[in-house]
This record gives sequence, structure tokens and C-alpha cells, in this order.
Amino acid sequence: MPIVTLTTDFGLRDHSVAAIKGALYKEMDTVRIVDVSHEISPFDNIEASYIIKNAYRHFPDGSVHIIGVDSEQTPDNRHIAVFLDNHYFICANNGIISLIASEIKPDKIVEINIHKTVESIFPMIDVFVKVAGHILRGGTLEVIGKPITTLKTQELIEPQINDAKNRIIGHVIYIDNFGNVVTNVKKSFFDAYRKTRNFEVKARHVKFDTLVESYSSGIDFTLPPKKRGEEAKKLALFNSSGYLELAIYKSNPKVYGGASSLYGLQPMDTITIDFL
Amino acid sequence: MPIVTLTTDFGLRDHSVAAIKGALYKEMDTVRIVDVSHEISPFDNIEASYIIKNAYRHFPDGSVHIIGVDSEQTPDNRHIAVFLDNHYFICANNGIISLIASEIKPDKIVEINIHKTVESIFPMIDVFVKVAGHILRGGTLEVIGKPITTLKTQELIEPQINDAKNRIIGHVIYIDNFGNVVTNVKKSFFDAYRKTRNFEVKARHVKFDTLVESYSSGIDFTLPPKKRGEEAKKLALFNSSGYLELAIYKSNPKVYGGASSLYGLQPMDTITIDFL
Amino acid sequence: MPIVTLTTDFGLRDHSVAAIKGALYKEMDTVRIVDVSHEISPFDNIEASYIIKNAYRHFPDGSVHIIGVDSEQTPDNRHIAVFLDNHYFICANNGIISLIASEIKPDKIVEINIHKTVESIFPMIDVFVKVAGHILRGGTLEVIGKPITTLKTQELIEPQINDAKNRIIGHVIYIDNFGNVVTNVKKSFFDAYRKTRNFEVKARHVKFDTLVESYSSGIDFTLPPKKRGEEAKKLALFNSSGYLELAIYKSNPKVYGGASSLYGLQPMDTITIDFL
Repeated sequence: MPIVTLTTDFGLRDHSVAAIKGALYKEMDTVRIVDVSHEISPFDNIEASYIIKNAYRHFPDGSVHIIGVDSEQTPDNRHIAVFLDNHYFICANNGIISLIASEIKPDKIVEINIHKTVESIFPMIDVFVKVAGHILRGGTLEVIGKPITTLKTQELIEPQINDAKNRIIGHVIYIDNFGNVVTNVKKSFFDAYRKTRNFEVKARHVKFDTLVESYSSGIDFTLPPKKRGEEAKKLALFNSSGYLELAIYKSNPKVYGGASSLYGLQPMDTITIDFL
Repeated sequence: MPIVTLTTDFGLRDHSVAAIKGALYKEMDTVRIVDVSHEISPFDNIEASYIIKNAYRHFPDGSVHIIGVDSEQTPDNRHIAVFLDNHYFICANNGIISLIASEIKPDKIVEINIHKTVESIFPMIDVFVKVAGHILRGGTLEVIGKPITTLKTQELIEPQINDAKNRIIGHVIYIDNFGNVVTNVKKSFFDAYRKTRNFEVKARHVKFDTLVESYSSGIDFTLPPKKRGEEAKKLALFNSSGYLELAIYKSNPKVYGGASSLYGLQPMDTITIDFL
Repeated sequence: MPIVTLTTDFGLRDHSVAAIKGALYKEMDTVRIVDVSHEISPFDNIEASYIIKNAYRHFPDGSVHIIGVDSEQTPDNRHIAVFLDNHYFICANNGIISLIASEIKPDKIVEINIHKTVESIFPMIDVFVKVAGHILRGGTLEVIGKPITTLKTQELIEPQINDAKNRIIGHVIYIDNFGNVVTNVKKSFFDAYRKTRNFEVKARHVKFDTLVESYSSGIDFTLPPKKRGEEAKKLALFNSSGYLELAIYKSNPKVYGGASSLYGLQPMDTITIDFL
């Protein structure tokens, strides 16, 4: 059964997500709809980039991913459909795909041109759902859009290396449900410059000179739970998506704070990695 | 595959929604269940009315919509099933359907009478799921209830026009995920009285004398983003559901406030439209 | 169609839940995935116990329930699969199943041993989804794990009776979406000790000497709504899951407080029942 995923900033209280699902079932009875996230911060393309990048690759080839974040069509912001890594993406050309496309070259990009003369006030239903239906029925992208060759990119989405090749400058791109702090530094980027050198990760007041393999790595399980200490819970690792994460073992951000509040780090804050 | 939608005030943390889904799958293996919203404010019939009205019409004909808001059966509050606009609704007779029924006459209404002698403590499963199963298997409403002819209505759910026909008095009925303020004034109602006159929409400290076609209408895209100005983001329009909405372009209520907080408007607040 | 349910503390904003669903669809195209809850408080095994216990029994026999709460494998915390009451559970051996297993003896428990040498950083996908796929394809538990005979239990999860058999000491285990306070005292436990005696339920400043049958029991519906009084809304009952609950009729915790805030009760607080 073909799969369509939905990623939006519409929240789960409004009727919008259900309206899209109803319209998709009208378009194709047998589709399987999966929510990726509807809790993207309003109009936050970087957050949406990170979420869709790490979700899509777990789905079967041929899945269609609709992204409804900042999707009103304006002169700045055109609707596109992209075929990449055997997956389809339908979204606005606002940089959301650039985090994926920086690693995997798109096979095809089209600027959607099935719009009526008056712009739609609910493009997710009037445009994106129609395009998804077209793709699910085996239609080609050229039928619903004009091929283009480049995608808009997002500022700050990629980490930088200095000229001396001894400092990476990255940014926080996401705070997860446990309050852990995700940066835009991928393991492959880090490894390419580190070689065999020692390193120091710095972000505001915290420093790490080792990276661990799992969230519980710092814990000495031979000690009784109360003697294991709070310091041992602080850690940095490459998370399951391959991004450098500054974390706290078993943190509960609602009760006693997570890495974000304890380390004082927010999205877009700078982190540096010095190679020594 | 038949569709059952769910609209409740149960939230997504409790087990209640999953229990209903499990019971529905036991009732009929092939049903497709779609969440409309489980974040309705507790016992808020007006919010539920607005959400289900704008969701249901996007679903295929024959869909069954279960609404579990204020659904404990009491002497004031009887369980009903309604067939209207080729859709089935199962809910309490507490005004939730009145927003839909004010525009589209129900074809059939029954007061459900399959209850045991002791009232159920979880009527969604013991009554609504059973009724949904009956309908999905092709059963008629008369088998599970006694036909009635009128539905309870809700106060404040409809806007009023004054005797001189030059002022509409409406109310805020919903604040959406972006903080935008939705009123109960529909385009058809507004157009019927406005004719060709000028108008002024007033709500607390804000006034609008034009209605735009899309959220970005006020923006001059020939200017660089930083020069487009904050005032240009304030707007009033008929939203994709046809209701008058007082909005702010690209607002993020979590970070710098949305229309609701910036205009100082809450559900049930009055808005007036004067025709000049 | 086989059913897999998901219960996690991952929240609905992150990509994690969607990643698990994608992986499950890759594992088996025809599976039906149902969310139980993703809003479990981080690492809160007691909350997870209560939620999964009251959800699973509404699902068809043969359903597979994946629980991703506190599921990183450590020396303290091994992965298990349990067959019990014709349902399968895949989780960590951290007490989550003990609330169910205290009433219904497991037919089979295995400690999962399909792990690679390096521990997985995302065990839900690398281990739990694989085990679910194995079960859905008809595989036996012995193939993916080593039979064990006992489950870890959780402190405070069961109420206690004193030596004189005239006082039950229980605890609050959950606050629901309406702010109602759920305790760990089941009707069967209460009835077994009460016999025909009078009783008094006490928790902080509130006392109840009667238990009602429904949330609206205290309301005199012959009076007009404004004369029905606030005191009549306070009640104690056995909820639809059979647990003693201290509640308020039609409470809205977001606006004017629910039982939890008005009675001053939080998870793990003590409640006593004296038989007189």
C-alpha cells in the first residue's frame, strides 16, 4: 500500500490535518497516511528540515512526503516536487529540502504549475494533495511542473571549517523531546577533519573532550543507583541520526531540566570544535 | 475501506483514545480510523462544533464521525446519531451538530436507545463504538434509536444582524494553532447584508476596512524582507473554511505572540461589522 | 490485519515515532499501527504501566505492543518479550509489565538476544521492530530470546493492607487529561477487604465516605444549571479501568483547575482508606 507522510506546523488541535487526510483518502482510497510531525514550530524551516531528513529514510522506497511548513505560495516561495533517494517530496522551495539535498543529489525537481489563477488559501489540499494523488497513480513530475535545477538553501544549516582546518563552527539546530541539544555537525564531517587529533567541543559553559557510544556510557552500573552521580550523566555523542548531540542521560525537561536548560543552549546558538 | 473519525477532549497522553481504537478494530477489522482532534478544550462544545464542521466535509461520503466531547449521558444530555450531507455523526445532543445543521438540514436524527439499565462510565466504547459498528455493517439508524426531529442549539454560535441591517454582531469562536482569531461570521452571511457598502470590522482595539484574499496579501515582495514592515502583516480575511478571521501573517504565538494575544481577543469576545 | 501498538515517551514533535513506523512498514507492509501514547513523562515507568494496562485489553487477541519507555539496554535493564493474555509485549524489563502481570500470569517471557555486539543507540528500531516483525510473521519467542521466569517489579505499584485489615494504603499513580486523580487501588482489592463495612477515603485535605457510579451522580438535574453547586461536583468512583479515582465533574484543568490542583494531589502521593 503506498505511503504518504505529513510534516506540518499545523498542530494537532485544529481541523487542518484531518482535512488533509480526508482529501487524501478521497484522492486515493488505498493510501496509507503516516504523521511525521505536526508540532514543528510555526514557519521554522530548519526544524522541519531536520525532522523530515531523519524520518524519511526509514520509510519504504516510493513513499511521498508532504511538508506543509511555510507553504503559502508567494513570489519568494514557489511550490516544488522533488524526487531524491527514491522518495518524493512535495513542499515549498524555502530550503526545507536543502539539508537532505546537501548529501544526496536530487534526481528531479519541478516547480509545480497546476495552480489556478487565484492563489489557494489552503495549498496543502488544493495543490499538494492533488500532486500526491498524481504521483501515487504513477504520474510523472513533468506533467504537474516545470523542471528546475537548483533548490534554495538555508543559512546556518551547514557547519563551517576554518582556513587552518583546526576549528569547526556549527550551530544548534534542534532541541529534542528530552531537552537534548542537537547540532548540525555530522559524524562524517567531524571525522573528515579530525583525523587522529584530540578535540574539544565547546558550547557556552560546557566542554567535552570525549564522545561516547550510548546515553548510558558514563554510568558505572556496579555502583548502587544513588551513588552514580549527576556529573556522569552529562555526555556528547553522535545520535542515531549521525548528528553531534550534547545530552544528559535520562533527563526529564519537564521536572528538573534537560541539557538545553542546564547547558543554556537554544536553537541557532554556536558550538565550536577545536582540534588540538 | 470505511472511515471512522474521532473528535474528543481526551488528550493524547491518556489511554482513552487507544482504547476506543482497539474496540473499533474488534468491532470491524477493516475500518480505517482517522483522528480529527483530541485536543478540544475540556467540555467545549463550541470549539468541537467548529472543528468537526470544517473537517468532516473533506472526507468521503458515508464516513462515520464519532464526537466524544461532553458525552456522559445525563437527563440534560442524550446520545444521538445523525445522518446529514451523506455523513454519519454519533455524539451527545448538546449543540455540537448545530453549527453544521444550521446550514444543512439533517436527513435523519435518532436518540440512541441501546444503553443498558445502568449508565455506562465509558460511553464512547459501550455505546458510540457499537453504534458505529452497526452503521459500518450497513444497519439503519432506526434499529439503534428512536427518531426525533430537533437538535439542541448553542447560544452565541450564530452571528446576529440588527434591525437596521447595518451592523453584524458576531463572536470569536476559535483561536487556531497560529494564534489567529476565527469568528462565527461566514462569508455568505456577510455578503447577504453588505451588498455593495463599505464596512468596518471592529474587535477590541483593532479595525479593518478591507478583507484580503490570502495571508501574504499585504506584503510588498519587491521590498527586501527586513523592509516589509510589521503593520503589513495584520489582516482580516475569510479563511479556508469561509469564516471571518483576524490574523497576522507568519505569526508564531509561542515566540512573539499571535493575533489572539496582540489583538487581545479570546473565544466568546464580541466583534462588530458596521456597514457604512 | 495484524496490529502493532506503540507506547513511548518520545513526544510527537521529534522524528522518532515516524521513524519507527517507517521501519515497521518496511518490516511488514500489511501491519496496522496504532499509537497508544507518546506523551508518557520521560522515563516514567509507572505512568507507562498504567497506560498500557488499560489500553491493551481493548485490542484484538494477537496484537503486539511495543513499549519504548526507558528502553536503552543497560546492565540494569534488559530487553524482553512477553506473551500474556493472548497479547505480545516488547519492552525493557524495568517493571512496566508488572502492573499487568500482577493480575494475569505471563504464559512466556524471553530475554531478547538478537543484539549486535555494540549496543544500539536506537533500540526501538534495531531491536523492538525486528522482534515485532518476527512475531507478526508467526515466529516463536524462543527464536529471538532466552526464556526467563520472573519479571522485575515496581515499588509502590501495589496498594498495601495493614495487619488489622482495616486500612488500605495506596498511592496516586496517574493524573488524567481532565486533572482527575487515579490511585492504584482496584475495585477487586477494595471489595475483598471492605466486606460490608463503612469506609473513609482520605488524601491530603479531602475525604469521601461514598463512591458513586458515574461522574454526574452528584448532580441534581431537576435544578437549573446555576443552582447545582460546586460541592456536588466532587466525587470518588472506580473509573472505567477499575481504579479508585478522585475526580471533579466536568473539570477543565487548563481554565479553573482539576481535581489534582484543587485537591493538591500529585503522582506518588499517599491515599488511605479506613474501614469503620
